[in-house]
Amino acid sequence: MQENLYDDQVFFKNYMELRENPVSYNTLLEQPALQAMLPPLAGKHVLDLGCGFGEGCAGYLRLGAAHVTGVDLSQNMINEAKKRNANERTAYFCMDMTQIASLGENYDVVASSLAVHYIEDFDALARSVYAILKKGGSFVFSQEHPLTTAPKEGPNWVYDEETHKRFYPLSSYSCPGPRTEEWLECSVHKYHRTFSQVLNALLGAGFVIRELREPVPDEQTVQKNPRMVKEYDKPSFLLIAAQKP
Amino acid sequence: MQENLYDDQVFFKNYMELRENPVSYNTLLEQPALQAMLPPLAGKHVLDLGCGFGEGCAGYLRLGAAHVTGVDLSQNMINEAKKRNANERTAYFCMDMTQIASLGENYDVVASSLAVHYIEDFDALARSVYAILKKGGSFVFSQEHPLTTAPKEGPNWVYDEETHKRFYPLSSYSCPGPRTEEWLECSVHKYHRTFSQVLNALLGAGFVIRELREPVPDEQTVQKNPRMVKEYDKPSFLLIAAQKP
Repeated sequence: MQENLYDDQVFFKNYMELRENPVSYNTLLEQPALQAMLPPLAGKHVLDLGCGFGEGCAGYLRLGAAHVTGVDLSQNMINEAKKRNANERTAYFCMDMTQIASLGENYDVVASSLAVHYIEDFDALARSVYAILKKGGSFVFSQEHPLTTAPKEGPNWVYDEETHKRFYPLSSYSCPGPRTEEWLECSVHKYHRTFSQVLNALLGAGFVIRELREPVPDEQTVQKNPRMVKEYDKPSFLLIAAQKP
Repeated sequence: MQENLYDDQVFFKNYMELRENPVSYNTLLEQPALQAMLPPLAGKHVLDLGCGFGEGCAGYLRLGAAHVTGVDLSQNMINEAKKRNANERTAYFCMDMTQIASLGENYDVVASSLAVHYIEDFDALARSVYAILKKGGSFVFSQEHPLTTAPKEGPNWVYDEETHKRFYPLSSYSCPGPRTEEWLECSVHKYHRTFSQVLNALLGAGFVIRELREPVPDEQTVQKNPRMVKEYDKPSFLLIAAQKP
C-alpha cells in the first residue's frame, strides 16, 4: 500500500486550507484545464482516482454523470468526502488506486487530478485503467509537470539580482525515480517520469492519445496571483486525455 | 522561402566537419534513436525532409527502400548530396519542406532528422506530411528537444563551484516562438514549441502517436564523449513516430 501522507494531521490541515484558497494553482490553472478536456459526462459512469474530499466527484455529478466512484488512499480524505460530498449516485472507497481491478470493468471515464505522480509504476496503472474502461472510454488526468518533478533537490527558483532574470535550475530530467519535496510542512514522496515515459506507458497499454495541455495563466489570472507569471518559464502541470480505442 | 543558413560558407564548412566527427551527438544519440523508430523500409517510398548531404537517403536505400526522395532548402547541401549519395533510386530537390504538396501523395514513410525546428508553422507542416502519406504511412522525425530550444538567451549551462552541481537554467518554456542561437560561428534561427504543441499539431492533423524517445547515452557512449553526461540533466533531442491511420 502506498504511503498515506493525507492522513498526517498537519499535512491534511494545511492541504485543506490550500484547497480553500480561491487563487490556488489548482483553482486557477489545473482544474479549468482538466474540466475542458473531459468528454461529455451525461449518463456516464465515472471513476475518480485520488478523489480527495470528493469535490471532483460532486462536479462530475453536476455535469450529468449517472454514477461516480471515488477512490483515495487516505481514510481522512474519504471521511471528508462522505461528509462534504455524499450522494446516492456516488460511492467512495479508501483504496490504493493500483488496486482498481477489483472495481470491475464498466467505466466510461476515468479521471484523476494530481494523483498519478504518487504512483511508482505508471505502466501498471495505465494497464489497470485501460482494463476497467469500456471500449471508447476516456482516461483524463493531470499530474505535476515533468519539469517540476525533475530536480532531485526540489524545485527552487533562482533570481539573478544583477541581470534581473529569473530561471529554473533544471537537472536530472532524464533520471526517473523517486523524489522528495518539502511541502506544507511535510516531506512529500513522489515519482519523476519523463514526458516520453508517461506517453509511452499510455501507448503501451493500448491507449490512443487525444490531447495534451500544459496550462499557463492568462493576464487576468496573473493579476489574481502574480507568482503565476513563473508558469511561463516552467509549467506546473501536465494534462493528458487518452482513449481506449 | 526559409532562410538558407546551410548555404553560408562558414557554417557549411563547420557543419560538415561536425558531421564527420565520430563522437558527435548526431552519431551517438540522435541517429541510433531515429533508425530504431523507423518502420520496415523494404520496398517502401521514403521522403526525407531536410536531407542535407543525403546520408539519411543512402541509409534508407540500404534498408531496402524502393525509392527515396530527399528535399533540402540549401542548394549547397543538395549539390553535396548529388555528389556523395547519388543513386538511380534517389531524387534530390532543393525546396522548402513546407512546399512538399507538389511532390504528390504517394509516400509510405516521411522521415526527418533535426530539421523541423527550423519551420515556423509546424501545424501546417504536420498537415502537409499527413496529406502526402499513404493510409497507414509513418512520419518519424527528430528535433531539438523543447528544453533545448526554450531559453531565449540560448542554452548555457551553469556549474556551481561551491556545491559542485551543474544545472540548466530553464526559462521561457511556455513562450513559443523564434529563437536565435550562436552555433558554429553563425546565428541560427529556429522555433521553440512546447511538448504539447508538437503533439497536438500531429493529433490535429489526424496522426496517431506511436512512440516518443528522449535518448540518453549509455555508459560506453559517455566514455566516448564525456560531455554527454549532461544529457541526463537536460536531453538534446526529442523523437516522435506517428502514423496516418
